[in-house]
Amino acid sequence: MQIPVRIVLVETTHPGNIGAAARAMKTMGLYDLALVRPRCAFPSDEATARATGATDILENARVYDSLPEAIADCGFVVGTSARERAVEWPTLPPRDCAAQVLDALDAGNRAAIVFGPEKYGLTNEALARCAVHVRIPTNPEFSSLNLAMAVQLLCYELRLAALDRARADERGETSGTEPQPSRVRPRLATVAELDHFYDHLDRVLVESGFLRADHQRQLRLKLRRIFQRAALDKNEVDILRGVLTSLEPSRYRVERSES
Amino acid sequence: MQIPVRIVLVETTHPGNIGAAARAMKTMGLYDLALVRPRCAFPSDEATARATGATDILENARVYDSLPEAIADCGFVVGTSARERAVEWPTLPPRDCAAQVLDALDAGNRAAIVFGPEKYGLTNEALARCAVHVRIPTNPEFSSLNLAMAVQLLCYELRLAALDRARADERGETSGTEPQPSRVRPRLATVAELDHFYDHLDRVLVESGFLRADHQRQLRLKLRRIFQRAALDKNEVDILRGVLTSLEPSRYRVERSES
Repeated sequence: MQIPVRIVLVETTHPGNIGAAARAMKTMGLYDLALVRPRCAFPSDEATARATGATDILENARVYDSLPEAIADCGFVVGTSARERAVEWPTLPPRDCAAQVLDALDAGNRAAIVFGPEKYGLTNEALARCAVHVRIPTNPEFSSLNLAMAVQLLCYELRLAALDRARADERGETSGTEPQPSRVRPRLATVAELDHFYDHLDRVLVESGFLRADHQRQLRLKLRRIFQRAALDKNEVDILRGVLTSLEPSRYRVERSES
Repeated sequence: MQIPVRIVLVETTHPGNIGAAARAMKTMGLYDLALVRPRCAFPSDEATARATGATDILENARVYDSLPEAIADCGFVVGTSARERAVEWPTLPPRDCAAQVLDALDAGNRAAIVFGPEKYGLTNEALARCAVHVRIPTNPEFSSLNLAMAVQLLCYELRLAALDRARADERGETSGTEPQPSRVRPRLATVAELDHFYDHLDRVLVESGFLRADHQRQLRLKLRRIFQRAALDKNEVDILRGVLTSLEPSRYRVERSES
C-alpha cells in the first residue's frame, strides 16, 4: 500500500535527519520527499547512510527554492507545529490529522505535510500557508522531538489510518454496496490557486484603501487565516474571485463621494 | 505526566540508538531505561550526543547481564516483534498494546517493553518471557524500522493512552465543573453578528452587481458556507466588516468606467 502524501522538509540542518526521514517514510509506505532550501549538502553520504535501504526516496527527492513551489499542486497542506502559538488556528493531534489527510486524498487532492528546521520549526508565514496544523503531544518538560522521529510518527498515523480504511472498504465490498461517504466536495483549491486569490484580494484592498501597500503584515495574515481555515474548494475560489472582480474600485471612477 | 514503564534494550549494537531511544522516551514522559548486554561501549559519547537533553535517562540507565534480571520486578512484559512468527502468540498492534500496559499499571504492576538487537530482533526465548507481543504494522516491502524509531512509536502510543485516561479521570472527578476549552480563541461570533455580516456582504454584492437582489439563493448559500466553515470569531467578523465598508461601491460615484 502506497500512501501518496508528500513530506516536505524545510531548511533542514542535519543530513542525517534527511536520511532518517526517508527511511521512516518508506517503512510506512510513503515515497514523495521534497526539500526546501536544505541547510546542508544534499545529496550527502550521511543522508544516504542513515536512509539504509530507502535510498530510492533520496534519489527521487526534489529540491525547491521556496515552500510555495514545493506545495503548489497540493490542495491540502498540513503544517507541523511544536509550540503552542498565540495565533488561533485549528491544531489537530496526529490521529485526527491523518484522517483529514486521507479525506483530502479521497476527494482527489494532493496532500503534503510540512516540517520546519530542527531548531525553530516553521515560521508563522509558512504555517499561514497550511490548512491545518498538527501538534504531537510531547512531554511539556522535554518536547525536543527529533525531526525524523516526528516524520516517523506522522507517517505511522497515516499508515494506520490507511490500513483502517482499506479494511473498512473490504468489509464494504463483501456486504453488498456501502453508502457513499457523507460529504462529497469538489477538489480543494491548490496552493497556487489560493495564492492567486490572495494576490487579487490584496490588490483590491490596497486599491480600496483598506490595506496599505507595504505594511500591516499581521492584518494580512489574519485575513489569510480566515480563508485557510475555510479550506476553500476550487469552485469557491472562483466565486470569491468573481466577488473581488465585481468590487474592484478601479472599475468605478475613483472619486470619493465623501470628502 | 510520568509514565512508569521500563524500556529494555537487549544487545543493542549502535550507541547512537541508545541515545536516540533515551531522547524518544523522554519526549513522551518515560524515564526508566534498562540495557541488557549492550554490544557497544556504554556509556559512550555517541549515545550522549544523540540523547541531546535526555542524558539524565542515560545516567540512570541500569545495565543487566540477562533479560530475566532486567524485568524481574515486572508483572507485565511486552516483547516487540518485527516478523510474523510461526508460534502462536497474542500479537497486538501498538495502540492495543499501550492500553494493556496501562491496564497493567492501574492494577498495580510494573511493566516493561523489550526491544531486541537491531539486526535480528528478540529471540524466541526472549519473546517467550513476554505476556504479549507487539508488532508495528510496517510496509511489507520495507519493514526496516530503526530501533529508536520503534521505541519512539511505542512511547508515543503509551503517552496518548495515558493522556486519554487522565482526561477521562478528570471528567469523572470534576463532572460538576465544565471541561476546559481545548484551544484559547477569542469568543466566536454570535449568530446575530454573523447575520449582520451576511446582510452587509449581500448589500455590497448587490450594489457591485455580483448578486441580483432576489435571485441566486444557491450562490448566497455557497458564500455563507465558506464563512460558516471558518468558524469566525468576533474580531474576524469586525475585520471583514471593515473590508466590506472599504469596498462599498456607493462610496464611489457609481459610474462604471466601462459601458
